[in-house]
Amino acid sequence: MGKAHSNAFAQVGHFYDTPFRIRRALLCGRDPASLKSMAARWEWDETSTDWRAAIDRRDIDLVDIALPNHMHAEVAIAAARAGKIVCCEKPLSLTVEDGEKMVAAAKHVRTLVWYNYRRVPAISFAHQLIAAGRLGTIFHYDAAYRQQWGPDRSRDGTWKMDPAQAGSGVADDLLTHLLDTALYLNGPVAEGLAMRKTFVPGRAIDDAFLALVRFANGSVGQFQATRFGIGCRNANGFQMHGSGGMLRFNLERLNHLEFADANEAATDQGTKDILVTDMQHPVFPHFWRPAHIIGYEHTFIAALGEFLQSLDNDTAFHPDFTDGLAVQKILAALQQSAQSATWTPIPS
Amino acid sequence: MGKAHSNAFAQVGHFYDTPFRIRRALLCGRDPASLKSMAARWEWDETSTDWRAAIDRRDIDLVDIALPNHMHAEVAIAAARAGKIVCCEKPLSLTVEDGEKMVAAAKHVRTLVWYNYRRVPAISFAHQLIAAGRLGTIFHYDAAYRQQWGPDRSRDGTWKMDPAQAGSGVADDLLTHLLDTALYLNGPVAEGLAMRKTFVPGRAIDDAFLALVRFANGSVGQFQATRFGIGCRNANGFQMHGSGGMLRFNLERLNHLEFADANEAATDQGTKDILVTDMQHPVFPHFWRPAHIIGYEHTFIAALGEFLQSLDNDTAFHPDFTDGLAVQKILAALQQSAQSATWTPIPS
Amino acid sequence: MGKAHSNAFAQVGHFYDTPFRIRRALLCGRDPASLKSMAARWEWDETSTDWRAAIDRRDIDLVDIALPNHMHAEVAIAAARAGKIVCCEKPLSLTVEDGEKMVAAAKHVRTLVWYNYRRVPAISFAHQLIAAGRLGTIFHYDAAYRQQWGPDRSRDGTWKMDPAQAGSGVADDLLTHLLDTALYLNGPVAEGLAMRKTFVPGRAIDDAFLALVRFANGSVGQFQATRFGIGCRNANGFQMHGSGGMLRFNLERLNHLEFADANEAATDQGTKDILVTDMQHPVFPHFWRPAHIIGYEHTFIAALGEFLQSLDNDTAFHPDFTDGLAVQKILAALQQSAQSATWTPIPS
Amino acid sequence: MGKAHSNAFAQVGHFYDTPFRIRRALLCGRDPASLKSMAARWEWDETSTDWRAAIDRRDIDLVDIALPNHMHAEVAIAAARAGKIVCCEKPLSLTVEDGEKMVAAAKHVRTLVWYNYRRVPAISFAHQLIAAGRLGTIFHYDAAYRQQWGPDRSRDGTWKMDPAQAGSGVADDLLTHLLDTALYLNGPVAEGLAMRKTFVPGRAIDDAFLALVRFANGSVGQFQATRFGIGCRNANGFQMHGSGGMLRFNLERLNHLEFADANEAATDQGTKDILVTDMQHPVFPHFWRPAHIIGYEHTFIAALGEFLQSLDNDTAFHPDFTDGLAVQKILAALQQSAQSATWTPIPS
Repeated sequence: MGKAHSNAFAQVGHFYDTPFRIRRALLCGRDPASLKSMAARWEWDETSTDWRAAIDRRDIDLVDIALPNHMHAEVAIAAARAGKIVCCEKPLSLTVEDGEKMVAAAKHVRTLVWYNYRRVPAISFAHQLIAAGRLGTIFHYDAAYRQQWGPDRSRDGTWKMDPAQAGSGVADDLLTHLLDTALYLNGPVAEGLAMRKTFVPGRAIDDAFLALVRFANGSVGQFQATRFGIGCRNANGFQMHGSGGMLRFNLERLNHLEFADANEAATDQGTKDILVTDMQHPVFPHFWRPAHIIGYEHTFIAALGEFLQSLDNDTAFHPDFTDGLAVQKILAALQQSAQSATWTPIPS
Repeated sequence: MGKAHSNAFAQVGHFYDTPFRIRRALLCGRDPASLKSMAARWEWDETSTDWRAAIDRRDIDLVDIALPNHMHAEVAIAAARAGKIVCCEKPLSLTVEDGEKMVAAAKHVRTLVWYNYRRVPAISFAHQLIAAGRLGTIFHYDAAYRQQWGPDRSRDGTWKMDPAQAGSGVADDLLTHLLDTALYLNGPVAEGLAMRKTFVPGRAIDDAFLALVRFANGSVGQFQATRFGIGCRNANGFQMHGSGGMLRFNLERLNHLEFADANEAATDQGTKDILVTDMQHPVFPHFWRPAHIIGYEHTFIAALGEFLQSLDNDTAFHPDFTDGLAVQKILAALQQSAQSATWTPIPS
Repeated sequence: MGKAHSNAFAQVGHFYDTPFRIRRALLCGRDPASLKSMAARWEWDETSTDWRAAIDRRDIDLVDIALPNHMHAEVAIAAARAGKIVCCEKPLSLTVEDGEKMVAAAKHVRTLVWYNYRRVPAISFAHQLIAAGRLGTIFHYDAAYRQQWGPDRSRDGTWKMDPAQAGSGVADDLLTHLLDTALYLNGPVAEGLAMRKTFVPGRAIDDAFLALVRFANGSVGQFQATRFGIGCRNANGFQMHGSGGMLRFNLERLNHLEFADANEAATDQGTKDILVTDMQHPVFPHFWRPAHIIGYEHTFIAALGEFLQSLDNDTAFHPDFTDGLAVQKILAALQQSAQSATWTPIPS
Repeated sequence: MGKAHSNAFAQVGHFYDTPFRIRRALLCGRDPASLKSMAARWEWDETSTDWRAAIDRRDIDLVDIALPNHMHAEVAIAAARAGKIVCCEKPLSLTVEDGEKMVAAAKHVRTLVWYNYRRVPAISFAHQLIAAGRLGTIFHYDAAYRQQWGPDRSRDGTWKMDPAQAGSGVADDLLTHLLDTALYLNGPVAEGLAMRKTFVPGRAIDDAFLALVRFANGSVGQFQATRFGIGCRNANGFQMHGSGGMLRFNLERLNHLEFADANEAATDQGTKDILVTDMQHPVFPHFWRPAHIIGYEHTFIAALGEFLQSLDNDTAFHPDFTDGLAVQKILAALQQSAQSATWTPIPS
């Protein structure tokens, strides 16, 4: 993620108007050789093998955290207490308790959580359509995130496969993206019932995670996160059905949003493939001319761009630590339900 | 359904070789005027307002049942006891008990249940690919059947909206199709946990039905049946992921099967849209030249064609009453789990 | 084609209201054994190896011609002179001269040419949208028909590969379908410039045929017909662009019409995939319930159904012999232009 | 284009290993205010309103030209004569004569023409598949580039609508992209026949340009470039059919390549949607993890990255000025054929 974050800091000023001069001041990490090479490539001024160096530096205003999940809390809390602006990779934390501490510590600083997919133009546009009532009363919200690298045993030694560093597995990784998007588009989840599955014998983390949910708005849904979705490389998608129609999205087709408008004449109705690259669409106009498509990295640039604008305008920015904590609460309840095999309410 | 069945009996001899001469001998129903008009249009020799007339006729070898769900058992048992070949619309019955009685009564006669979608060429071909091991070890089997007419209150008076005649609602209707296809492609379901949702206040039936399941083969899955899938007209689909790849199907694209073959070179992999209309594909060659596509009705013709051939060859035919009963057992367990909100085993 | 025609005559009364009682009275052909088997399967009353038998029979009202192209003129003229209703396979004739004789002979009888694709619901609906002005001023009309069996040398002995029986090759076969659809949707062609290509050395017919055209309405277009479109089985498609939007169709997706409506808000615009299976769409409602898709054969049934209705109502039916002749005139001009390598006007 | 080029120079070092230190030294243009703002945003060291300043500076090694078409020749020749490395926007020139002078002037310097789409991973991968013989003998190569802004009269005053600055219109603009890609994938064009169309009365440039072509390898094709392809925003696509299968591409789906492999078993054949984002695919691995898609700008970065590597390795780079001239020769012949209305050979 260091690469995607570095790119965002390098590019944000090219595409977003901001009064801030962004310097890449200090790159922290464990391995000096990697740090040096990374700093050279991405024009970081200095490096350090001690993340506390960033906290201690008076001339550093913003600390960006792209560490394994279990380290988020400690670093974020230290940075917040030092008065820094704090950006943190998702998921916010390993536990709700940690998340609550982070929110408390960051009470007086500005925060961002890298649920970058809110700035996919198609997802942002979906949010606009829903907010404008185009989808009417929502009946169904289903989401799935399927990747296919689960059978690859060579990754078993990485931190993503270690519960102590990554949490339960695919749930903390892919499911949290689904949950943040669901909160953004369909609002709070009232209760859920989940199941976990580890396909590879002996693995300590879950390979797949499935759930049924009831949303506060009365709609019902299914969630699925898996690393055994063979045939799907990065298929982060959702499908919503409301009295006003259907919305459908898949991250592998990032520039597209599918919309079936139930308010059209019956003979005209169908699923429309909208290339979300118009100068009047959200996010996209910062980048290129219509239909000159963008990619993965632009969601980071856009999140950062809007965050910087919110700092300048002193307006709210989402997702912040509080939003990140909301995801953790659903995740924790679903984890608990997977163990108890019962419907579990989500505390608000 | 009378129209689709009549068409199948009229057309089967045109596309399938069969030693049997098919006569449409006697059309039974409640309304004499409708019967007369239907018989005239579809060349039925005679009509009757008493279904027992068909049972009593010595010259009638086969009784085909296209009645509301709650009448299947009585008619089928009477027909079977009279030694008739019995074809019955799905679902087999309203209860497992009824289904078991039907199976027992039909022990010595040949039976067919109209889970016609097994004869969609794409589904039949999927079955072949799986049987040949092309999908390897199965990890996920997800299925959904979405229609959109649920909000239409004008249908509230029909038998499909009356639990006494239709069962619980969308589960007996759309979900049973999903279950039969799942049994056909992925084998027995070990246990499940379901939820029901009625969106329209006061409706006695379920509008949507969602479930998590564990299959006997170790794979996990999600099922969803809904009449509130606005934007989807007849979207009966499944998606399977195994170590060998992915299969995906949607009845709105009946002639197509999507296949991602994980055994190809990495650079070659992708989701292939197979038009299942080759002369070497199953089912299709009975009809037209390659890529001259077929539709809904052909699945009935093909089911009947293969059934007649099995009578001639004295070979097994599926789905028969026993297969129909297997669906009822899963359905009953899922209904029970929806009430108890607990994982419920499926008796085999 | 005998199978598709027989099916249409067998099925039309099941799906269309008609005052006529359709009998399959006499099946003519060359090979007695084939005739007998075909008649048995499709319930033809009698057979004959002399097509004149059909002309001579007083009790036969309608003669349907499904012969190689070079025989259309003789049989159709004889039938028309005998006062029969005449249905004729496409293309109408091998030459414009023959076509003109056929039109003249049929001046006082009702005729149909089997350009069946006008009754694809999607194409019929496209016609409605255009007639309603939804596409505005047309700028572009492009069409291609790609099949892939050209490299198969085993078909070289069939009549389709013999210029004396089939005309020039792919042009008389696939291109004529494109031309009839273009006339139906976009009106007369003013002039054209074509090229022919035979990929297989020594073959007497053209394997591919390409053309540039100017339509009378000011739009411009490209046509392509090929049997070397490897990867396409039956891809008969068109694409139109007008000030009001785009329409796109492919016969391999017979139930679908793609429509981009340029009159929508900029952010809403996209290509819509309309499943042309609504009860308010043309053609489809004669068959099944919404989204229970139809196939190739239904275009024949619908053409015949509408033709019978036009006989009953004494209204015009298209495409008739005059429409078939219009196709021959464009074809002849394009053939001439392929030889002269110059723009060639199409006589009206 | 200045933005896309600036971005490429800013980003190339982040994604490509290069021994060169890229400075954005001097930004030239006409309007001082725009220059200043652009330089500030994209970190150019200095600005000048005289492009000759760049030629004269000893410390500048590379001159990049993003000017209206009619100025390419003068600037490129001056830069080449000064011994600079020269990058030039497409099309290379307004005339073949100018292009030949540019090639001659650049004989001893390294050049790049910004036909950036060669570095779309999907197009680069298509090139690999073809080079490996996967498509066999090519029968058809069709290409079209459709945009929809033609009816917008507000652009009539821009240089793109002025023949003196832009050439004939859409041909110099969109068609040249198609021609370069065709040369890259299918080799030289032997002869062509074109037509031009201006839909807006009084416009001096062509709005649409259509052509039939014969390639040197025996295949035939159609080209179409239009700004009146309403419903298509940036649909730059091609479709190839060979004895080994089909390839299909559309720039609106930049990350995808469609491939139908005719060497598969008949039942397995279909059109495969390959997401060209594997670590073994060309171009893509320089950017992100599998299936984390890229966009328009990456084709510029990749072209520049490979160009810099070729400078370092002293290997050939394409497309250079000679490749750009090859496009001009086809364009000139097609323009001539549009006037003469005859097949016109393309000089090699």
